[in-house]
Amino acid sequence: MHLSMDLNSTINAGNHEIVITNDVNSLLKGFLNNPGSSFSSVFVISDENTNQQCLPLIKKSLPGFRNIVIGAGELNKNFHTCNVVWEQLLQAGADRKALVINLGGGMVSDLGGFAAATYKRGVRFVNIPTSLLGMVDASSGGKTGIDLNLYKNMVGLFAFPAIVMIDPVFLKTLPEKEWRNGVAEMLKHGIIADKKLWQSLSDEINNSSNATLDESSKNKFISLLLASVKVKADIVTKDPFELNERMYLNFGHTMGHALESYSLKNDDVPLTHGEAIAIGMICETLLSVKLCALPVEVMDEITATITTFFKQYRIPKNAYQEIIQLMKADKKSENNLMTFTLLKNLEAPVLQKGVAADLVLEALHFYNLLRK
Amino acid sequence: MHLSMDLNSTINAGNHEIVITNDVNSLLKGFLNNPGSSFSSVFVISDENTNQQCLPLIKKSLPGFRNIVIGAGELNKNFHTCNVVWEQLLQAGADRKALVINLGGGMVSDLGGFAAATYKRGVRFVNIPTSLLGMVDASSGGKTGIDLNLYKNMVGLFAFPAIVMIDPVFLKTLPEKEWRNGVAEMLKHGIIADKKLWQSLSDEINNSSNATLDESSKNKFISLLLASVKVKADIVTKDPFELNERMYLNFGHTMGHALESYSLKNDDVPLTHGEAIAIGMICETLLSVKLCALPVEVMDEITATITTFFKQYRIPKNAYQEIIQLMKADKKSENNLMTFTLLKNLEAPVLQKGVAADLVLEALHFYNLLRK
Repeated sequence: MHLSMDLNSTINAGNHEIVITNDVNSLLKGFLNNPGSSFSSVFVISDENTNQQCLPLIKKSLPGFRNIVIGAGELNKNFHTCNVVWEQLLQAGADRKALVINLGGGMVSDLGGFAAATYKRGVRFVNIPTSLLGMVDASSGGKTGIDLNLYKNMVGLFAFPAIVMIDPVFLKTLPEKEWRNGVAEMLKHGIIADKKLWQSLSDEINNSSNATLDESSKNKFISLLLASVKVKADIVTKDPFELNERMYLNFGHTMGHALESYSLKNDDVPLTHGEAIAIGMICETLLSVKLCALPVEVMDEITATITTFFKQYRIPKNAYQEIIQLMKADKKSENNLMTFTLLKNLEAPVLQKGVAADLVLEALHFYNLLRK
Repeated sequence: MHLSMDLNSTINAGNHEIVITNDVNSLLKGFLNNPGSSFSSVFVISDENTNQQCLPLIKKSLPGFRNIVIGAGELNKNFHTCNVVWEQLLQAGADRKALVINLGGGMVSDLGGFAAATYKRGVRFVNIPTSLLGMVDASSGGKTGIDLNLYKNMVGLFAFPAIVMIDPVFLKTLPEKEWRNGVAEMLKHGIIADKKLWQSLSDEINNSSNATLDESSKNKFISLLLASVKVKADIVTKDPFELNERMYLNFGHTMGHALESYSLKNDDVPLTHGEAIAIGMICETLLSVKLCALPVEVMDEITATITTFFKQYRIPKNAYQEIIQLMKADKKSENNLMTFTLLKNLEAPVLQKGVAADLVLEALHFYNLLRK
């Protein structure tokens, strides 16, 4: 990776700012030394991986910080881990003027944000995303939380970071799987709100050999970070608490979250969030054709790009009912009826309540039929 | 108890209303049947005691509710219990339009409010306090939370109930210890903001035999419910998130919470919250004389009434340092310096930051010397 681009953008996300930079150390120092901040202590929450790979890159800007390291991976995003964080804050004497820095992917910022927002009824926190997924999605917007029995994000609250600091330097050590994980959300942003972004990503995917991601593709994705972050920031600014248009960001997620939970429970190598969302987007694209008159050519375009970029997965037929049940537990469900964000077209998402189970089954089956 | 008073008052607490009534069933039915509410399901959280003693009194107004029963007592106010509540909500298919009714004392409304406010990023909840302490304090004002390693309320958030319904009918089965528990907070309300309330309570205490509380005293306390609730509601309305004058409600609590935590860990029969707060008020009254020129006669008056009404407790000298450490973990502490709400006079509280440990030790010793 050359990271030759000069990145320096501040994006307003309503309740918080997102800064994209090539120099997270300067940004961090400036933030900590701002006389208005007056933090009594600084805690860094990282996971086993980011503690080794990412913390060394910013350590010099963090005099006297305390280190809280949690287990990596979605399976650790639970109340046991949260309790460990609370106890370490308490034992270290963190008061209400403490600052928590979440250094990691979405799992770290989701759990760390929740822990910070509930410790002593809330201390301030900063997100420094280290994964592409964290950068384009999880680190901004104020959704914090933990999973419950592998049901995704069932416990949580809206709590906004003091600032989000995005520096692609952390991506240097990011495993390829994690790149794809992030690109899934970038594709979603393009599909629901930015045709150009969608086209650029789609072109890159369709014109590259995707068996292994090369530097050129990675740099292309980095160059599209800003556009992707902007889609989310604009929507969150308009509707921070997800009463209306923020639900559009859930495209692919009603089915994706259910598949992700199913896979976490049943597969030795579970689907990543992005892989699950990618399948969810294909299924929900079919629902969009059936229910919202999405042109079939658009469905074909979306389906082709996604199947080119993400590995195939077999959804076992005998798991269909379990997956439907998982969807019914989705936070957007009401009175046992499933809610989806579907598409009338690119850049034209629409909320669809009360979708019947047989159509959902058909969509799962449709995905399975796509397998070559 | 005659409960002959016709109670029917609605008190504005800013973010929520508190209704004092003799007919909680009518109030509850009206609330649940309000077309604007549209709850998808109703859950009642009670503890082992209120499930038996209080739930039967309102069951007829709750068609088709689900019952969540938790262990009683402060020792259960932790994240394990919270997780049980979350899991039961999830298993029963509670969606975002579910309603949680917290039926119990402060432990139930603190924990139940926290569980509700974080389940699926928040469902609505109602508090129906069944203890005097719950009625005059814990059920209103939106502080929710759980303890951490017996440190009081270390995890939580501000989340406001849809409504608080107070009906003294639940007090019929309240143990005498619990009456005293509530009177402690009523005394505090009188001291910081309502001299008449203080005088009425003080007269009742000093003119009765307090060895056993008789019906007449209990009725007197019920007649003062409204005045006490109003003190809290007025303060909470002005400063819901405790940035300024809401801190006045912490009179007696910096020392009280530390003593309560200490006693929970060390005593076979731990101090109740009210007993601990009562000791805290005595100690902080001495600090007020030293630091805020509280007239000695007022200190004597407060000390005399409180020692008449609450059982004596010996604070072991070798526990002083542990208690100081507990105070330093208090949510109001900053940079390891303790903050207290002290008194310049009755109805004249003042916030005092950075109180030195030796003065605090002296105050603990002062309390011990009061023992006859």
